Amino acid sequence: MNRDELTSQILDAKRAKGLTFTELAEQLGADRLWATAALLGQHPFTEEQAAKLQDLLGLPAEAAPLLTEVPMRGSFDTLPPTDPTIYRLYEVLQVYGPAIKQLIHEDFGDGIMSAISFNADVTREESEDGPRVRITFDGKFLPYKW
Amino acid sequence: MNRDELTSQILDAKRAKGLTFTELAEQLGADRLWATAALLGQHPFTEEQAAKLQDLLGLPAEAAPLLTEVPMRGSFDTLPPTDPTIYRLYEVLQVYGPAIKQLIHEDFGDGIMSAISFNADVTREESEDGPRVRITFDGKFLPYKW
Amino acid sequence: MNRDELTSQILDAKRAKGLTFTELAEQLGADRLWATAALLGQHPFTEEQAAKLQDLLGLPAEAAPLLTEVPMRGSFDTLPPTDPTIYRLYEVLQVYGPAIKQLIHEDFGDGIMSAISFNADVTREESEDGPRVRITFDGKFLPYKW
Amino acid sequence: MNRDELTSQILDAKRAKGLTFTELAEQLGADRLWATAALLGQHPFTEEQAAKLQDLLGLPAEAAPLLTEVPMRGSFDTLPPTDPTIYRLYEVLQVYGPAIKQLIHEDFGDGIMSAISFNADVTREESEDGPRVRITFDGKFLPYKW
Amino acid sequence: MNRDELTSQILDAKRAKGLTFTELAEQLGADRLWATAALLGQHPFTEEQAAKLQDLLGLPAEAAPLLTEVPMRGSFDTLPPTDPTIYRLYEVLQVYGPAIKQLIHEDFGDGIMSAISFNADVTREESEDGPRVRITFDGKFLPYKW
Amino acid sequence: MNRDELTSQILDAKRAKGLTFTELAEQLGADRLWATAALLGQHPFTEEQAAKLQDLLGLPAEAAPLLTEVPMRGSFDTLPPTDPTIYRLYEVLQVYGPAIKQLIHEDFGDGIMSAISFNADVTREESEDGPRVRITFDGKFLPYKW
Amino acid sequence: MNRDELTSQILDAKRAKGLTFTELAEQLGADRLWATAALLGQHPFTEEQAAKLQDLLGLPAEAAPLLTEVPMRGSFDTLPPTDPTIYRLYEVLQVYGPAIKQLIHEDFGDGIMSAISFNADVTREESEDGPRVRITFDGKFLPYKW
Amino acid sequence: MNRDELTSQILDAKRAKGLTFTELAEQLGADRLWATAALLGQHPFTEEQAAKLQDLLGLPAEAAPLLTEVPMRGSFDTLPPTDPTIYRLYEVLQVYGPAIKQLIHEDFGDGIMSAISFNADVTREESEDGPRVRITFDGKFLPYKW
Amino acid sequence: MNRDELTSQILDAKRAKGLTFTELAEQLGADRLWATAALLGQHPFTEEQAAKLQDLLGLPAEAAPLLTEVPMRGSFDTLPPTDPTIYRLYEVLQVYGPAIKQLIHEDFGDGIMSAISFNADVTREESEDGPRVRITFDGKFLPYKW
Amino acid sequence: MNRDELTSQILDAKRAKGLTFTELAEQLGADRLWATAALLGQHPFTEEQAAKLQDLLGLPAEAAPLLTEVPMRGSFDTLPPTDPTIYRLYEVLQVYGPAIKQLIHEDFGDGIMSAISFNADVTREESEDGPRVRITFDGKFLPYKW
Repeated sequence: MNRDELTSQILDAKRAKGLTFTELAEQLGADRLWATAALLGQHPFTEEQAAKLQDLLGLPAEAAPLLTEVPMRGSFDTLPPTDPTIYRLYEVLQVYGPAIKQLIHEDFGDGIMSAISFNADVTREESEDGPRVRITFDGKFLPYKW
Repeated sequence: MNRDELTSQILDAKRAKGLTFTELAEQLGADRLWATAALLGQHPFTEEQAAKLQDLLGLPAEAAPLLTEVPMRGSFDTLPPTDPTIYRLYEVLQVYGPAIKQLIHEDFGDGIMSAISFNADVTREESEDGPRVRITFDGKFLPYKW
Repeated sequence: MNRDELTSQILDAKRAKGLTFTELAEQLGADRLWATAALLGQHPFTEEQAAKLQDLLGLPAEAAPLLTEVPMRGSFDTLPPTDPTIYRLYEVLQVYGPAIKQLIHEDFGDGIMSAISFNADVTREESEDGPRVRITFDGKFLPYKW
Repeated sequence: MNRDELTSQILDAKRAKGLTFTELAEQLGADRLWATAALLGQHPFTEEQAAKLQDLLGLPAEAAPLLTEVPMRGSFDTLPPTDPTIYRLYEVLQVYGPAIKQLIHEDFGDGIMSAISFNADVTREESEDGPRVRITFDGKFLPYKW
Repeated sequence: MNRDELTSQILDAKRAKGLTFTELAEQLGADRLWATAALLGQHPFTEEQAAKLQDLLGLPAEAAPLLTEVPMRGSFDTLPPTDPTIYRLYEVLQVYGPAIKQLIHEDFGDGIMSAISFNADVTREESEDGPRVRITFDGKFLPYKW
Repeated sequence: MNRDELTSQILDAKRAKGLTFTELAEQLGADRLWATAALLGQHPFTEEQAAKLQDLLGLPAEAAPLLTEVPMRGSFDTLPPTDPTIYRLYEVLQVYGPAIKQLIHEDFGDGIMSAISFNADVTREESEDGPRVRITFDGKFLPYKW
Repeated sequence: MNRDELTSQILDAKRAKGLTFTELAEQLGADRLWATAALLGQHPFTEEQAAKLQDLLGLPAEAAPLLTEVPMRGSFDTLPPTDPTIYRLYEVLQVYGPAIKQLIHEDFGDGIMSAISFNADVTREESEDGPRVRITFDGKFLPYKW
Repeated sequence: MNRDELTSQILDAKRAKGLTFTELAEQLGADRLWATAALLGQHPFTEEQAAKLQDLLGLPAEAAPLLTEVPMRGSFDTLPPTDPTIYRLYEVLQVYGPAIKQLIHEDFGDGIMSAISFNADVTREESEDGPRVRITFDGKFLPYKW
Repeated sequence: MNRDELTSQILDAKRAKGLTFTELAEQLGADRLWATAALLGQHPFTEEQAAKLQDLLGLPAEAAPLLTEVPMRGSFDTLPPTDPTIYRLYEVLQVYGPAIKQLIHEDFGDGIMSAISFNADVTREESEDGPRVRITFDGKFLPYKW
Repeated sequence: MNRDELTSQILDAKRAKGLTFTELAEQLGADRLWATAALLGQHPFTEEQAAKLQDLLGLPAEAAPLLTEVPMRGSFDTLPPTDPTIYRLYEVLQVYGPAIKQLIHEDFGDGIMSAISFNADVTREESEDGPRVRITFDGKFLPYKW
């Protein structure tokens, strides 16, 4: 069994039990965006989380140790992503990516926003015009340092 | 003259005058991330902004009308982007993109975050561990509606 | 079971029962182009539609909840599409895409035709020269708005 | 001089004279979507149109014969197109392309909508919800015929 | 069962019975190049042909209705094709494609050779130098017509 | 000067003199499809043809020796070709390529149609339904021979 | 069963019986490089060779007729090949390919080395510096001939 | 000036002086295949060779030092190569590459044929059937050695 | 069974037994980086190592001979690699690759670092700033030698 | 002027003055691998370094401010790199990349080697077998930290 096959089983079990990602995250005591990414195969779980998840979703015995291994990360075989909801994030990168780079350099000097020492958030904001999606990326600045 | 050639001239003039993107944005009375993207060729300027920019940077007479045209948008010829600062944004998409999709659907139902009725921000946050880059995307939720 | 596998089962059952997409759409009480896209895996169904479809086509019990989930959208692994009927739509994009963009900007200003707040139609028109295919895309105009 | 270089000159002259594509089309006595595509290098002009265009925009003497040659058609070097306004048309293809194919086959049998014996239209419709973009493709049905 | 899987079964049965494509075409009362393409999954059969084929090759009951459906056409996942026999056709396109376009325009004006109202032929010609392959494409000329 | 640049000059001179490819081929005493391909940069000319062409089109002195060199052949940077007239040839390859391969093997055994010991033809045929394009490929059969 | 699946079975049986490609070629009475390529799925076998191979390796009854069919040739899905031993052949092409083309043209005129009327060889040569791999390609020269 | 631009100048001068690659190699006292590859930009020359070449072809003063620099090697922007003469070498790789790998491993064990400690040759052989191209690759065997 | 399938089994067994790559390498008496690459399918094992591994991990009987075969090497289907830990190695290549080439040429002349007569190492170094990853590549210099 | 054009000028001046990268690095008081990468356009220089470089190589006045800007990083347009010296680094990634990932995780846990807080080295080691290239990558370990 590899992690991709296990992710399919997790999604099948989640659907059968009628659970949301947010509910699963709460049960695991983890941030819901982190947990959703992990359930989709992008992060390892701790041993406790893996055991709880195995129990919660009725996964086979081999699942828990596999869930604690560092996975081979990455979500897309073909680029750009074709799904419209995900594509908009990619479109933001096409339109604003170089501008974000310039402002990082103006504010911090030469370096990057870490995607490792990093957290992110998705929230719902109400506005007069209707609800808005607010996505925050928050990563440590890493200066180029030889 | 096309917009790409004009962007090169803008960057040459900006460098020669020692201006930052933030300073240019202030002079134009525009949000600095929006203005940086526009200066890099991703948005049209209003006629007033175009005139001011032409004056400020000593651009040729053809520049102003060209700056007010809606450009052909998009920043990357090859994908993924090779620059490390921009690549990290792309890596976030690879690791968290499907998770963000799931949470948008849990919180809002079927639909997308608009990248058109949209604004974004880059800010510097200080933390005990050193400075952090905080990037916010804020777009109207658009439900699928036939 | 994932949505792709379920789509295969739907097509097998549809063929075995000798139903057309138009007939299935009528049974579901839905627009026939929307329904065809949904049956091909591009849209979620409502719970009632999913239940009806499960019943109508004799699908397994897991089918209904899966049909109500927002799918990962997108139809082509390789581009451009090789099928001649679909390729012609792509050829239209190659020949008329930039012209359509220019006229949207002339008529509406900077912005896009939404593909989310959107409907479309395929109809058969008779002409002296023989039948003609008429395809209409009808989407809300979304102005760029920071 | 090739057609691409001439298209650049046409766009420069159009901008300098402050003309719209719609106005140019009227002067040429041609449908405005057809004319916009032709001005962008996708169709040959008749000799009369070419002469009028040369005069109207002050193009060099070599322009007119070049404008009457059948061009090498196609607009995109990289796919999918990165510009958001054009991308939405491509997204429609990703989400509805196979459904449109199915309905053409249900209504007409095996064959295609011609992209050659073809016309199209972009119009602005007002709705309670704000303006909508309406794009119509209208092509002769061509049955597969050995 | 999808059409690809059915094509595999057809090829297995054809091999087991020691039939050629030419013989199968004769049995089906169809042109042999058209029939070969159809047997390889590129065309739908009529109901009579499908029934005859099912009988002739001992195909399962689901085969016949599937064979009458318009398939998703196209033969190559990767391009250019790696098989030397097929590659030579592609090489002809690389060396003579633009020349063929020019001569079609000189002889017919702006337009295309239809690949839909189209037939083709492969014949063996004897010459002093040995046998020659003669391939003929014969398609209706379709003038660009708005 | 390289062959691509020379091809541009040839096309400019041809247009300025109002000559067709067919007329140029006649002047060179060569088959018109071969000559069109050669004028588009796909074949070397003999010294006599090169001299005549230089004279006929008023090409610079370096042109003649360059025209007699074997060129780096191939017409397309991106594949498939986007021009509709050329694309139809490619579509024929997608739909009939494997069928042509099978029939070559049935008629000749294992081997290929040579694209080197090869000639081709484009002719206009009149039919009740209107004019038809007839393209013939005629190449020596080369059996696999170790 | 297709040829790829049969190649897998052949390799499994070869390994189980501890045979080399050279030994198999001897048993088949064929050149060892030709036979290795054929065993890897790139050539059809004669009926006698196919029968012998079926017997020798204990292949199923369907194997023999499949082995006599002309296969769809080509070894690589992705290019360039990632295996270092094969990559070096590709590197030779990158560094010396155009030079080989020039010398073929200097020695023979316009044309190609046939890859069909062709044989090749791999031999081991001992030198003071250690063993050397000597690969010979030997193909008929085919002049361009209209 | 970079090496690509210099290669163009070398080819222009070679053509103007009517020299062959073989003659240039003789003048440089170098193997003709090595020299042809070097003249096409794939190898550095010694200082003496560079000086002689500069003199022989009337190259500018900056040419000699540039010719002695190790170049960025590699000949193809797009793959596979479209030129038929070069393509045949690539086709050999597609059909015989994995077989050559297997025989290198049978004769030598795990390792590669070096493309660095390597020489090659193109010769013309006469046969009853007409001339044959014989290409030899001769590289040191390098065993995998940790 | 092919090597990829066997690699999956090895990883399943390693996980079930709770072994690390370092422990497996020790048991095999091999360098741990070499052994990890070999366990992931990139190198053949000796017969003794293969037998020990089969025993240690409870692999099926066909495993040992397969493990001693030279594999088809290479780890990535799509490039660049999406996993962040591996991507950083690729990023180093994008930023420092040409510089490393220049310094190899300055220190050694024209040639390469062998990736065949090669070893590498990953070690953990402690620093004031926290642990550092130290990766060493150590390959024989191979001068270009005709 | 952009950074790519400036890099060309730097290489021309370096060649004209007969300087090595190592000598330039010494003059700039910088590590030689860092400096070589920076001279090739991958890093910004400090103002002092930029002024010194402008002086040393006789660069135009606009060079210095451009050299201090953070560049758009990345060296390769096409992948994998075709140059053999650089390709070997890429081959190491193909063969050992996943193994290096596994050992980083065994020694450090989940995380990456930073390519930002990073230095590297190329040295020449003498061995009995001849000189060896030793390349060291040394980067801070960054643990995944939400």
